[in-house]
Amino acid sequence: MTTNEATTYPQSPRTKVNRRPDRIGYDVAAVHAVLDEGLVCHVGYPNQGAPLVLPTLYVRVGEDLYLHGSTGAGLMRFPDETLPICVTVTLTDGLVMARSWFNHSVNYRCVVVRGDATLVTDPDEKMAALTALVEHVALGRAADSRPPNRRELAATAVLRLPLREVSLKVRSGSSKDDDEDLGLPFWAGVIPVETVFGPPEPDSDLPVPGYVRDYRR
Amino acid sequence: MTTNEATTYPQSPRTKVNRRPDRIGYDVAAVHAVLDEGLVCHVGYPNQGAPLVLPTLYVRVGEDLYLHGSTGAGLMRFPDETLPICVTVTLTDGLVMARSWFNHSVNYRCVVVRGDATLVTDPDEKMAALTALVEHVALGRAADSRPPNRRELAATAVLRLPLREVSLKVRSGSSKDDDEDLGLPFWAGVIPVETVFGPPEPDSDLPVPGYVRDYRR
Repeated sequence: MTTNEATTYPQSPRTKVNRRPDRIGYDVAAVHAVLDEGLVCHVGYPNQGAPLVLPTLYVRVGEDLYLHGSTGAGLMRFPDETLPICVTVTLTDGLVMARSWFNHSVNYRCVVVRGDATLVTDPDEKMAALTALVEHVALGRAADSRPPNRRELAATAVLRLPLREVSLKVRSGSSKDDDEDLGLPFWAGVIPVETVFGPPEPDSDLPVPGYVRDYRR
Repeated sequence: MTTNEATTYPQSPRTKVNRRPDRIGYDVAAVHAVLDEGLVCHVGYPNQGAPLVLPTLYVRVGEDLYLHGSTGAGLMRFPDETLPICVTVTLTDGLVMARSWFNHSVNYRCVVVRGDATLVTDPDEKMAALTALVEHVALGRAADSRPPNRRELAATAVLRLPLREVSLKVRSGSSKDDDEDLGLPFWAGVIPVETVFGPPEPDSDLPVPGYVRDYRR
Protein backbone atom coordinates (compact mmCIF):
# COMPACT_ATOMS: atom_id res chain seq x y z
CA MET A 1 0.00 0.00 0.00
CA THR A 2 1.34 3.38 -1.00
CA THR A 3 0.85 6.09 1.62
CA ASN A 4 0.82 9.84 1.20
CA GLU A 5 1.97 12.42 3.73
CA ALA A 6 1.30 15.38 1.42
CA THR A 7 -2.01 17.23 1.57
CA THR A 8 -2.22 17.90 -2.17
CA TYR A 9 -1.37 15.88 -5.26
CA PRO A 10 1.32 17.48 -7.42
CA GLN A 11 0.14 18.90 -10.74
CA SER A 12 1.47 17.12 -13.79
CA PRO A 13 1.27 18.24 -17.43
CA ARG A 14 -1.53 15.69 -17.76
CA THR A 15 -3.61 16.82 -14.75
CA LYS A 16 -3.11 20.57 -15.03
CA VAL A 17 -6.03 22.35 -16.67
CA ASN A 18 -6.15 25.66 -18.42
CA ARG A 19 -9.92 26.05 -18.43
CA ARG A 20 -11.94 26.87 -15.31
CA PRO A 21 -9.00 26.54 -12.89
CA ASP A 22 -11.43 27.70 -10.17
CA ARG A 23 -13.13 24.31 -10.40
CA ILE A 24 -10.00 22.16 -10.18
CA GLY A 25 -8.38 20.92 -7.00
CA TYR A 26 -5.69 18.52 -5.89
CA ASP A 27 -6.57 18.17 -2.21
CA VAL A 28 -5.83 14.64 -1.02
CA ALA A 29 -8.66 14.47 1.54
CA ALA A 30 -11.23 15.80 -0.94
CA VAL A 31 -10.09 13.30 -3.60
CA HIS A 32 -10.32 10.43 -1.10
CA ALA A 33 -13.83 11.52 -0.09
CA VAL A 34 -15.10 11.32 -3.69
CA LEU A 35 -13.36 8.00 -4.37
CA ASP A 36 -14.76 6.50 -1.18
CA GLU A 37 -18.32 7.72 -1.83
CA GLY A 38 -18.37 6.56 -5.45
CA LEU A 39 -19.28 3.02 -6.39
CA VAL A 40 -18.64 2.57 -10.11
CA CYS A 41 -15.77 4.14 -12.04
CA HIS A 42 -15.32 4.47 -15.78
CA VAL A 43 -11.98 3.14 -16.91
CA GLY A 44 -10.48 4.08 -20.26
CA TYR A 45 -7.78 2.02 -21.89
CA PRO A 46 -6.37 1.47 -25.38
CA ASN A 47 -8.24 -1.24 -27.27
CA GLN A 48 -7.91 -2.06 -30.96
CA GLY A 49 -6.29 1.28 -31.68
CA ALA A 50 -8.76 3.51 -29.89
CA PRO A 51 -9.84 4.29 -26.32
CA LEU A 52 -12.47 2.00 -24.81
CA VAL A 53 -14.44 3.16 -21.76
CA LEU A 54 -16.16 0.65 -19.48
CA PRO A 55 -17.83 0.88 -16.08
CA THR A 56 -16.44 -1.24 -13.27
CA LEU A 57 -16.16 -1.42 -9.50
CA TYR A 58 -13.02 -0.07 -7.85
CA VAL A 59 -11.66 0.60 -4.41
CA ARG A 60 -9.09 2.95 -2.92
CA VAL A 61 -6.57 1.48 -0.48
CA GLY A 62 -4.26 4.19 0.81
CA GLU A 63 -2.77 5.81 -2.28
CA ASP A 64 -3.68 3.06 -4.75
CA LEU A 65 -6.79 2.24 -6.72
CA TYR A 66 -7.62 -1.40 -7.39
CA LEU A 67 -9.84 -2.72 -10.19
CA HIS A 68 -10.69 -6.36 -10.71
CA GLY A 69 -12.06 -8.48 -13.48
CA SER A 70 -12.02 -11.86 -15.12
CA THR A 71 -8.58 -12.89 -16.29
CA GLY A 72 -10.27 -13.16 -19.71
CA ALA A 73 -11.47 -9.54 -19.70
CA GLY A 74 -9.90 -7.21 -22.23
CA LEU A 75 -8.73 -4.80 -19.54
CA MET A 76 -6.82 -7.54 -17.76
CA ARG A 77 -4.95 -8.81 -20.83
CA PHE A 78 -1.83 -6.67 -20.49
CA PRO A 79 0.13 -6.72 -23.75
CA ASP A 80 3.00 -5.03 -21.87
CA GLU A 81 4.05 -4.88 -18.23
CA THR A 82 2.10 -1.67 -17.71
CA LEU A 83 -1.07 -0.33 -19.31
CA PRO A 84 -1.81 3.41 -19.67
CA ILE A 85 -5.29 3.89 -18.23
CA CYS A 86 -7.57 6.59 -16.91
CA VAL A 87 -9.99 5.98 -14.05
CA THR A 88 -12.78 8.52 -13.64
CA VAL A 89 -15.28 8.67 -10.78
CA THR A 90 -18.17 11.11 -11.16
CA LEU A 91 -20.80 12.01 -8.58
CA THR A 92 -23.67 14.01 -10.08
CA ASP A 93 -25.17 16.40 -7.52
CA GLY A 94 -27.56 18.67 -9.40
CA LEU A 95 -28.97 20.05 -12.64
CA VAL A 96 -28.32 23.77 -12.87
CA MET A 97 -31.00 25.69 -14.75
CA ALA A 98 -29.84 29.17 -15.71
CA ARG A 99 -31.86 31.79 -17.54
CA SER A 100 -29.71 31.30 -20.65
CA TRP A 101 -29.00 27.97 -22.33
CA PHE A 102 -25.32 28.87 -22.25
CA ASN A 103 -25.15 29.08 -18.45
CA HIS A 104 -26.93 25.81 -17.82
CA SER A 105 -24.64 23.44 -16.00
CA VAL A 106 -24.35 20.37 -13.81
CA ASN A 107 -23.22 20.23 -10.20
CA TYR A 108 -20.79 17.38 -9.81
CA ARG A 109 -17.61 16.10 -8.21
CA CYS A 110 -15.27 14.24 -10.52
CA VAL A 111 -11.92 12.60 -9.81
CA VAL A 112 -9.68 11.72 -12.75
CA VAL A 113 -6.70 9.43 -12.16
CA ARG A 114 -4.22 8.86 -14.96
CA GLY A 115 -1.22 6.60 -15.02
CA ASP A 116 0.25 3.22 -15.76
CA ALA A 117 -1.57 0.27 -14.23
CA THR A 118 0.16 -2.96 -13.29
CA LEU A 119 -1.26 -6.39 -12.57
CA VAL A 120 -1.11 -7.44 -8.92
CA THR A 121 0.91 -10.64 -8.59
CA ASP A 122 1.48 -10.81 -4.82
CA PRO A 123 -1.20 -13.13 -3.37
CA ASP A 124 -1.49 -11.15 -0.11
CA GLU A 125 -1.93 -7.84 -1.92
CA LYS A 126 -4.48 -9.43 -4.26
CA MET A 127 -6.52 -10.84 -1.37
CA ALA A 128 -6.34 -7.52 0.50
CA ALA A 129 -7.56 -5.69 -2.61
CA LEU A 130 -10.48 -8.10 -3.11
CA THR A 131 -11.43 -7.78 0.58
CA ALA A 132 -11.36 -4.00 0.25
CA LEU A 133 -13.47 -4.20 -2.93
CA VAL A 134 -16.21 -6.18 -1.17
CA GLU A 135 -16.07 -3.79 1.79
CA HIS A 136 -16.23 -0.79 -0.56
CA VAL A 137 -19.49 -2.11 -1.96
CA ALA A 138 -20.96 -2.85 1.48
CA LEU A 139 -19.11 -2.31 4.74
CA GLY A 140 -19.33 -5.53 6.73
CA ARG A 141 -20.01 -7.79 3.76
CA ALA A 142 -16.54 -9.41 3.52
CA ALA A 143 -17.03 -11.23 6.82
CA ASP A 144 -20.64 -12.05 5.95
CA SER A 145 -20.06 -13.98 2.70
CA ARG A 146 -17.71 -16.69 1.44
CA PRO A 147 -14.17 -15.61 0.40
CA PRO A 148 -12.83 -16.88 -2.91
CA ASN A 149 -11.46 -20.39 -3.24
CA ARG A 150 -8.34 -21.22 -5.22
CA ARG A 151 -10.21 -21.64 -8.53
CA GLU A 152 -12.07 -18.34 -8.14
CA LEU A 153 -8.86 -16.51 -7.19
CA ALA A 154 -7.12 -17.91 -10.25
CA ALA A 155 -9.97 -16.68 -12.46
CA THR A 156 -9.79 -13.14 -11.04
CA ALA A 157 -7.25 -10.52 -12.05
CA VAL A 158 -6.58 -7.37 -10.04
CA LEU A 159 -4.81 -4.27 -11.29
CA ARG A 160 -3.28 -1.44 -9.33
CA LEU A 161 -3.18 2.23 -10.34
CA PRO A 162 -1.24 4.50 -7.97
CA LEU A 163 -2.80 7.86 -7.05
CA ARG A 164 -0.06 9.99 -8.57
CA GLU A 165 -1.61 11.96 -11.42
CA VAL A 166 -4.88 12.96 -9.81
CA SER A 167 -7.28 15.86 -10.14
CA LEU A 168 -10.67 16.74 -8.70
CA LYS A 169 -13.14 18.92 -10.56
CA VAL A 170 -16.12 20.35 -8.68
CA ARG A 171 -19.07 22.52 -9.64
CA SER A 172 -21.47 23.33 -6.80
CA GLY A 173 -23.97 25.93 -5.72
CA SER A 174 -26.59 27.97 -7.45
CA SER A 175 -27.07 29.02 -11.06
CA LYS A 176 -24.84 31.80 -12.36
CA ASP A 177 -26.46 34.09 -14.90
CA ASP A 178 -25.10 37.08 -16.75
CA ASP A 179 -26.33 40.29 -15.08
CA GLU A 180 -28.30 41.32 -18.15
CA ASP A 181 -30.24 38.03 -18.06
CA LEU A 182 -31.46 38.32 -14.47
CA GLY A 183 -34.65 40.10 -15.49
CA LEU A 184 -35.69 37.50 -18.07
CA PRO A 185 -39.01 35.79 -17.33
CA PHE A 186 -37.42 32.34 -16.89
CA TRP A 187 -37.19 30.36 -13.67
CA ALA A 188 -33.65 29.55 -12.52
CA GLY A 189 -32.37 27.20 -9.86
CA VAL A 190 -30.96 23.78 -9.14
CA ILE A 191 -32.63 20.36 -9.24
CA PRO A 192 -30.71 18.23 -6.72
CA VAL A 193 -29.71 14.75 -7.89
CA GLU A 194 -29.27 11.97 -5.37
CA THR A 195 -28.58 8.24 -5.48
CA VAL A 196 -30.83 6.25 -3.15
CA PHE A 197 -30.73 2.60 -2.13
CA GLY A 198 -33.21 -0.08 -1.17
CA PRO A 199 -35.48 -1.50 0.11
CA PRO A 200 -33.60 -4.80 -0.33
CA GLU A 201 -35.01 -7.59 -2.53
CA PRO A 202 -34.07 -10.82 -0.70
CA ASP A 203 -33.09 -14.09 -2.37
CA SER A 204 -32.80 -15.68 1.08
CA ASP A 205 -34.97 -16.42 4.10
CA LEU A 206 -32.31 -15.19 6.51
CA PRO A 207 -32.88 -11.90 8.33
CA VAL A 208 -31.72 -8.85 6.36
CA PRO A 209 -28.37 -7.67 7.79
CA GLY A 210 -28.19 -4.15 9.19
CA TYR A 211 -25.61 -3.06 6.61
CA VAL A 212 -28.12 -4.01 3.88
CA ARG A 213 -31.27 -2.65 5.55
CA ASP A 214 -29.65 0.71 6.34
CA TYR A 215 -27.48 0.84 3.23
CA ARG A 216 -26.18 4.25 2.31
CA ARG A 217 -22.97 5.80 1.08
CA MET B 1 -29.74 13.37 -38.79
CA THR B 2 -28.91 9.78 -39.53
CA THR B 3 -31.86 7.40 -39.35
CA ASN B 4 -31.93 3.67 -38.87
CA GLU B 5 -34.45 1.24 -40.28
CA ALA B 6 -32.74 -1.83 -38.80
CA THR B 7 -33.81 -3.21 -35.44
CA THR B 8 -30.32 -4.24 -34.35
CA TYR B 9 -26.88 -2.65 -34.69
CA PRO B 10 -24.42 -4.79 -36.66
CA GLN B 11 -21.64 -6.37 -34.64
CA SER B 12 -18.18 -5.08 -35.43
CA PRO B 13 -14.83 -6.53 -34.31
CA ARG B 14 -14.77 -3.69 -31.77
CA THR B 15 -18.26 -4.24 -30.33
CA LYS B 16 -18.36 -8.04 -30.35
CA VAL B 17 -17.62 -9.58 -26.97
CA ASN B 18 -16.33 -13.00 -26.15
CA ARG B 19 -17.17 -12.96 -22.44
CA ARG B 20 -20.74 -13.21 -21.12
CA PRO B 21 -22.43 -13.01 -24.54
CA ASP B 22 -25.71 -13.57 -22.66
CA ARG B 23 -25.41 -10.04 -21.29
CA ILE B 24 -24.71 -8.29 -24.60
CA GLY B 25 -27.30 -6.94 -26.99
CA TYR B 26 -27.52 -4.81 -30.09
CA ASP B 27 -31.22 -3.97 -30.08
CA VAL B 28 -31.79 -0.47 -31.42
CA ALA B 29 -34.84 0.30 -29.25
CA ALA B 30 -33.12 -0.92 -26.08
CA VAL B 31 -30.01 1.13 -26.86
CA HIS B 32 -32.13 4.23 -27.47
CA ALA B 33 -33.98 3.72 -24.17
CA VAL B 34 -30.73 3.70 -22.17
CA LEU B 35 -29.28 6.67 -24.04
CA ASP B 36 -32.48 8.66 -23.54
CA GLU B 37 -32.74 7.84 -19.82
CA GLY B 38 -29.10 8.63 -19.07
CA LEU B 39 -27.94 12.14 -18.35
CA VAL B 40 -24.15 12.13 -18.18
CA CYS B 41 -21.87 10.04 -20.38
CA HIS B 42 -18.18 9.27 -19.95
CA VAL B 43 -16.22 10.07 -23.08
CA GLY B 44 -12.78 8.62 -23.69
CA TYR B 45 -10.36 10.16 -26.16
CA PRO B 46 -6.63 10.18 -26.81
CA ASN B 47 -4.84 12.91 -24.86
CA GLN B 48 -1.09 13.30 -24.43
CA GLY B 49 -0.46 9.74 -25.51
CA ALA B 50 -3.02 8.00 -23.30
CA PRO B 51 -6.79 7.73 -22.96
CA LEU B 52 -8.52 10.46 -20.97
CA VAL B 53 -12.03 9.87 -19.62
CA LEU B 54 -14.29 12.78 -18.71
CA PRO B 55 -17.97 13.12 -17.82
CA THR B 56 -20.14 15.31 -20.00
CA LEU B 57 -23.71 15.82 -21.12
CA TYR B 58 -24.82 14.27 -24.40
CA VAL B 59 -27.96 13.78 -26.43
CA ARG B 60 -29.15 11.29 -29.00
CA VAL B 61 -30.81 12.67 -32.14
CA GLY B 62 -31.91 9.83 -34.40
CA GLU B 63 -28.81 7.75 -35.00
CA ASP B 64 -26.27 10.33 -33.84
CA LEU B 65 -24.91 11.33 -30.46
CA TYR B 66 -23.98 14.95 -29.88
CA LEU B 67 -21.57 16.26 -27.24
CA HIS B 68 -20.80 19.91 -26.66
CA GLY B 69 -18.12 21.90 -24.92
CA SER B 70 -16.10 25.06 -24.95
CA THR B 71 -14.11 25.54 -28.13
CA GLY B 72 -11.12 25.67 -25.77
CA ALA B 73 -11.82 22.25 -24.23
CA GLY B 74 -9.33 19.49 -24.98
CA LEU B 75 -12.00 17.24 -26.45
CA MET B 76 -12.99 19.90 -28.97
CA ARG B 77 -9.47 20.60 -30.23
CA PHE B 78 -9.42 18.14 -33.10
CA PRO B 79 -5.86 17.62 -34.31
CA ASP B 80 -7.28 15.79 -37.34
CA GLU B 81 -10.60 15.86 -39.15
CA THR B 82 -11.90 12.98 -37.04
CA LEU B 83 -11.19 11.90 -33.47
CA PRO B 84 -11.45 8.27 -32.30
CA ILE B 85 -13.64 8.37 -29.20
CA CYS B 86 -15.74 6.12 -27.01
CA VAL B 87 -18.94 7.30 -25.36
CA THR B 88 -20.24 5.17 -22.50
CA VAL B 89 -23.55 5.63 -20.68
CA THR B 90 -24.08 3.54 -17.55
CA LEU B 91 -27.24 3.24 -15.48
CA THR B 92 -26.65 1.47 -12.17
CA ASP B 93 -29.74 -0.47 -11.05
CA GLY B 94 -28.69 -2.58 -8.08
CA LEU B 95 -26.03 -4.10 -5.87
CA VAL B 96 -26.13 -7.87 -6.08
CA MET B 97 -25.10 -9.63 -2.87
CA ALA B 98 -24.37 -13.31 -3.44
CA ARG B 99 -23.32 -15.82 -0.80
CA SER B 100 -19.79 -15.91 -2.27
CA TRP B 101 -17.61 -12.88 -2.90
CA PHE B 102 -17.03 -14.23 -6.39
CA ASN B 103 -20.69 -14.07 -7.38
CA HIS B 104 -21.28 -10.55 -6.12
CA SER B 105 -22.28 -8.32 -9.00
CA VAL B 106 -23.96 -5.11 -10.06
CA ASN B 107 -27.21 -4.75 -11.95
CA TYR B 108 -26.71 -2.20 -14.69
CA ARG B 109 -27.45 -1.17 -18.24
CA CYS B 110 -24.50 0.15 -20.21
CA VAL B 111 -24.28 1.43 -23.77
CA VAL B 112 -20.84 1.73 -25.38
CA VAL B 113 -20.51 3.68 -28.62
CA ARG B 114 -17.19 3.66 -30.46
CA GLY B 115 -16.24 5.53 -33.57
CA ASP B 116 -14.79 8.59 -35.19
CA ALA B 117 -16.28 11.87 -34.06
CA THR B 118 -16.44 14.94 -36.26
CA LEU B 119 -17.01 18.58 -35.39
CA VAL B 120 -20.37 19.96 -36.46
CA THR B 121 -19.89 22.88 -38.80
CA ASP B 122 -23.39 23.38 -40.21
CA PRO B 123 -25.08 26.13 -38.16
CA ASP B 124 -28.54 24.54 -38.42
CA GLU B 125 -27.29 21.15 -37.25
CA LYS B 126 -25.37 22.81 -34.42
CA MET B 127 -28.42 24.75 -33.25
CA ALA B 128 -30.61 21.63 -33.49
CA ALA B 129 -28.07 19.66 -31.42
CA LEU B 130 -27.91 22.35 -28.73
CA THR B 131 -31.71 22.52 -28.59
CA ALA B 132 -31.85 18.76 -28.20
CA LEU B 133 -29.19 18.89 -25.47
CA VAL B 134 -31.21 21.35 -23.40
CA GLU B 135 -34.35 19.29 -23.96
CA HIS B 136 -32.48 16.10 -22.99
CA VAL B 137 -31.64 17.66 -19.62
CA ALA B 138 -35.19 18.92 -19.05
CA LEU B 139 -38.02 18.49 -21.52
CA GLY B 140 -39.61 21.89 -22.06
CA ARG B 141 -36.59 23.92 -20.98
CA ALA B 142 -35.44 25.05 -24.44
CA ALA B 143 -38.50 27.24 -24.88
CA ASP B 144 -38.31 28.41 -21.28
CA SER B 145 -34.79 29.92 -21.31
CA ARG B 146 -32.76 32.19 -23.57
CA PRO B 147 -31.15 30.59 -26.67
CA PRO B 148 -27.49 31.33 -27.36
CA ASN B 149 -26.45 34.60 -28.97
CA ARG B 150 -23.76 34.82 -31.65
CA ARG B 151 -20.91 35.14 -29.14
CA GLU B 152 -22.08 32.16 -27.09
CA LEU B 153 -22.54 30.05 -30.23
CA ALA B 154 -19.03 30.91 -31.38
CA ALA B 155 -17.65 29.82 -28.01
CA THR B 156 -19.44 26.45 -28.14
CA ALA B 157 -18.25 23.45 -30.11
CA VAL B 158 -20.44 20.45 -30.90
CA LEU B 159 -19.26 17.05 -32.03
CA ARG B 160 -21.19 14.25 -33.67
CA LEU B 161 -20.65 10.52 -33.17
CA PRO B 162 -22.82 8.28 -35.33
CA LEU B 163 -24.45 5.26 -33.69
CA ARG B 164 -22.66 2.66 -35.81
CA GLU B 165 -20.47 0.61 -33.47
CA VAL B 166 -22.86 0.20 -30.57
CA SER B 167 -23.39 -2.40 -27.87
CA LEU B 168 -25.59 -2.69 -24.81
CA LYS B 169 -24.59 -4.74 -21.78
CA VAL B 170 -27.22 -5.58 -19.17
CA ARG B 171 -27.19 -7.45 -15.88
CA SER B 172 -30.53 -7.68 -14.10
CA GLY B 173 -32.44 -9.82 -11.67
CA SER B 174 -31.55 -11.71 -8.54
CA SER B 175 -28.28 -13.03 -7.16
CA LYS B 176 -26.88 -16.19 -8.76
CA ASP B 177 -25.04 -18.50 -6.40
CA ASP B 178 -23.34 -21.81 -7.02
CA ASP B 179 -25.61 -24.64 -5.86
CA GLU B 180 -23.17 -25.73 -3.16
CA ASP B 181 -23.25 -22.23 -1.63
CA LEU B 182 -27.03 -22.01 -1.22
CA GLY B 183 -26.93 -23.48 2.28
CA LEU B 184 -24.33 -21.03 3.60
CA PRO B 185 -25.54 -18.85 6.49
CA PHE B 186 -25.19 -15.61 4.50
CA TRP B 187 -28.03 -13.35 3.37
CA ALA B 188 -28.30 -12.88 -0.40
CA GLY B 189 -30.32 -10.47 -2.46
CA VAL B 190 -30.30 -7.19 -4.34
CA ILE B 191 -30.13 -3.62 -3.03
CA PRO B 192 -31.89 -1.51 -5.67
CA VAL B 193 -30.12 1.69 -6.74
CA GLU B 194 -32.12 4.64 -7.99
CA THR B 195 -31.42 8.22 -9.02
CA VAL B 196 -33.90 10.69 -7.54
CA PHE B 197 -34.40 14.39 -8.24
CA GLY B 198 -35.53 17.45 -6.30
CA PRO B 199 -37.07 19.25 -4.54
CA PRO B 200 -35.84 22.24 -6.58
CA GLU B 201 -33.65 24.95 -5.01
CA PRO B 202 -34.83 28.19 -6.65
CA ASP B 203 -32.60 31.13 -7.57
CA SER B 204 -35.67 33.00 -8.78
CA ASP B 205 -38.96 34.32 -7.40
CA LEU B 206 -40.90 33.01 -10.40
CA PRO B 207 -43.20 30.01 -9.93
CA VAL B 208 -41.43 26.65 -10.30
CA PRO B 209 -42.27 25.24 -13.76
CA GLY B 210 -44.01 21.86 -13.90
CA TYR B 211 -41.10 20.19 -15.71
CA VAL B 212 -38.87 21.18 -12.77
CA ARG B 213 -41.31 20.42 -9.94
CA ASP B 214 -42.16 16.97 -11.34
CA TYR B 215 -38.70 16.25 -12.74
CA ARG B 216 -37.96 12.64 -13.46
CA ARG B 217 -36.29 10.57 -16.16
